[in-house]
Amino acid sequence: MGSLASERKVTGWAARDPSGILSPFTYTLRTTGPEDVVIKVKYCGVCHTDIHQTKNHLGMSNYPMVPGHEVVGEVVEVGSAVRQFKVGETVGAGVIVGCCRECGSCKSGDEQYCGKKIWSYNDVYTDGKPTQGGFASAMIVDQKFVVKIPAGLAPEQAAPLLCAGVTVYSPLKHFGLMQGGLRGGIMGLGGVGHMGVKIAKAMGHHVTVISSSDKKRAEATDHLGADAYIVSSDGAQMGAAADSLDYIIDTVPVFHPLEPYLSLLKVNGKLILMGVINQPLQFVTPLVMLGRKTITGTFIGSMEETHEMLQFCEKKGLTSMIEIVKMDQVNEALERLERNDVRYRFVVDVANSNLDA
Amino acid sequence: MGSLASERKVTGWAARDPSGILSPFTYTLRTTGPEDVVIKVKYCGVCHTDIHQTKNHLGMSNYPMVPGHEVVGEVVEVGSAVRQFKVGETVGAGVIVGCCRECGSCKSGDEQYCGKKIWSYNDVYTDGKPTQGGFASAMIVDQKFVVKIPAGLAPEQAAPLLCAGVTVYSPLKHFGLMQGGLRGGIMGLGGVGHMGVKIAKAMGHHVTVISSSDKKRAEATDHLGADAYIVSSDGAQMGAAADSLDYIIDTVPVFHPLEPYLSLLKVNGKLILMGVINQPLQFVTPLVMLGRKTITGTFIGSMEETHEMLQFCEKKGLTSMIEIVKMDQVNEALERLERNDVRYRFVVDVANSNLDA
Repeated sequence: MGSLASERKVTGWAARDPSGILSPFTYTLRTTGPEDVVIKVKYCGVCHTDIHQTKNHLGMSNYPMVPGHEVVGEVVEVGSAVRQFKVGETVGAGVIVGCCRECGSCKSGDEQYCGKKIWSYNDVYTDGKPTQGGFASAMIVDQKFVVKIPAGLAPEQAAPLLCAGVTVYSPLKHFGLMQGGLRGGIMGLGGVGHMGVKIAKAMGHHVTVISSSDKKRAEATDHLGADAYIVSSDGAQMGAAADSLDYIIDTVPVFHPLEPYLSLLKVNGKLILMGVINQPLQFVTPLVMLGRKTITGTFIGSMEETHEMLQFCEKKGLTSMIEIVKMDQVNEALERLERNDVRYRFVVDVANSNLDA
Repeated sequence: MGSLASERKVTGWAARDPSGILSPFTYTLRTTGPEDVVIKVKYCGVCHTDIHQTKNHLGMSNYPMVPGHEVVGEVVEVGSAVRQFKVGETVGAGVIVGCCRECGSCKSGDEQYCGKKIWSYNDVYTDGKPTQGGFASAMIVDQKFVVKIPAGLAPEQAAPLLCAGVTVYSPLKHFGLMQGGLRGGIMGLGGVGHMGVKIAKAMGHHVTVISSSDKKRAEATDHLGADAYIVSSDGAQMGAAADSLDYIIDTVPVFHPLEPYLSLLKVNGKLILMGVINQPLQFVTPLVMLGRKTITGTFIGSMEETHEMLQFCEKKGLTSMIEIVKMDQVNEALERLERNDVRYRFVVDVANSNLDA
């Protein structure tokens, strides 16, 4: 333990404009505060949100921007008040790095819903400086937002769990959908969807992948272990599955009608939306009312849920399926991710990359 | 007790075609079965659904049709297996009169979501004959679908509780929204909405009525006891109320945007839809996801909830606000209801009407 009284110069890969192209960028991290953990980044997953942010799809981007919010690394220094982390330990950081600690959400341990939460990058920290993410040699993160990576998890495979993993774990936990024997549906087989299949299977659920075409049948059932596969345009398959699912995790990030999927839910079934879609989605009320069905959506998970999810994954021997790239391949990886050409998550091997190249 | 081995001739007021105009109609009720309760109808509430059904708005109407599903009357005969009801008692019947008793919903006491439920009218009973509702001198109802009306409730005021009352009580109970101190919103001040204000107030909630204009402010706050009133087109009022409500009961029966109301909900807040609207409603996913908000809807309530709700209303001294009419005024009442000209529910005084007129 101990706190260096100086700022720390780091190199990350930053987008400079809405082209979203990343290139080396040198900046300083804040002086290590009493609650801070300094993390030497080893691996960082590539999330679809990184594209939205670097390309300014949401109209809120500030440059230069170092993305990356699925961060696994080694503790290299801790602040004077930090007791739970030690130098040399493997830890992770995710989508948020700050919250107000005073609102109802913060007090009930749901800090991800704090109205003053601070995002890992493209946000402003309490010191007034921009936050920068995990595509960099190091990050400084308040200990509240740091988790230990269990010894049984490979660090590169743990990285995507910190966003994609907890994003599916949290709603299953929050909505009381963790017990074995439930029947779940997963729409979309990207980073979040593939973790959805794996986590739901590990909970003992019967898992149906619902897709717009037959293309992913083999990977869903053979590689990911889904129990069933339905093509949503096939009326007979959809009809046969009507009223059969306790929940659907819908990771489709573009407009789609909700009625066909609401019809697949049992009474009290839940349609859990994970895709940020600014074009309005639609449904008719009788379909919801006559089955007391729920349309909802959640946002990552709490730090407590993140911790729990990592323990769960270790216990169940559950990992993400990833493709590892070096930082000089990150622009290509972002391009491929944008056209959904990855099975299922890119992870940048930051520690073994030449960040100055 | 005892069972008459003969059918019973009754007179009701029936619609004959999609004009929806009711006129006297004589028909026979089934022979009293062992589980049946024969009810001499005293009062029957007029629900907006009666208009949809009599005018064939849903395309599923069969004529002649005797509507009415908020029925209070006196037991005049019981079947051989009926122990819980006695001749002379005041009882009620509501929206459904049959279910399969074997499905998950039936087994868990949510028979209102049974896929084979039988509606009180415009449906076919287990004997293959049409069901007919409460705008008639008598009804025969299986004891499972009969409730006792507590002595402390006036029968004419209890009638609307059997549909409108339980329709708002059930979601508050099911979704864990009964504890005092919650902040609720009510949209629409018809039969269901006015009971929403009264029931939520009786639960100790802070109740805000949200309306499209300022017209109903006085009746909401002065007559019904709402704590606050917001005009939905007033941006300043809506902004000031953002993130403030635990739930909204939305009884508006026509298309309306959901975003403004989702914005009023706190994190984990619930938008509970009560209006049967076949034109799709819309919302954007971030508004739901970033607050883990829920869009849901429910359909009446279970018989157990109906019983509970009646006990609750008796204990709290809570009644519906009604306008009593005789059967020869029922067509006028339906007309006035259709243009929302009633505060808040018409109840037909069936027993004191000349049904043959």
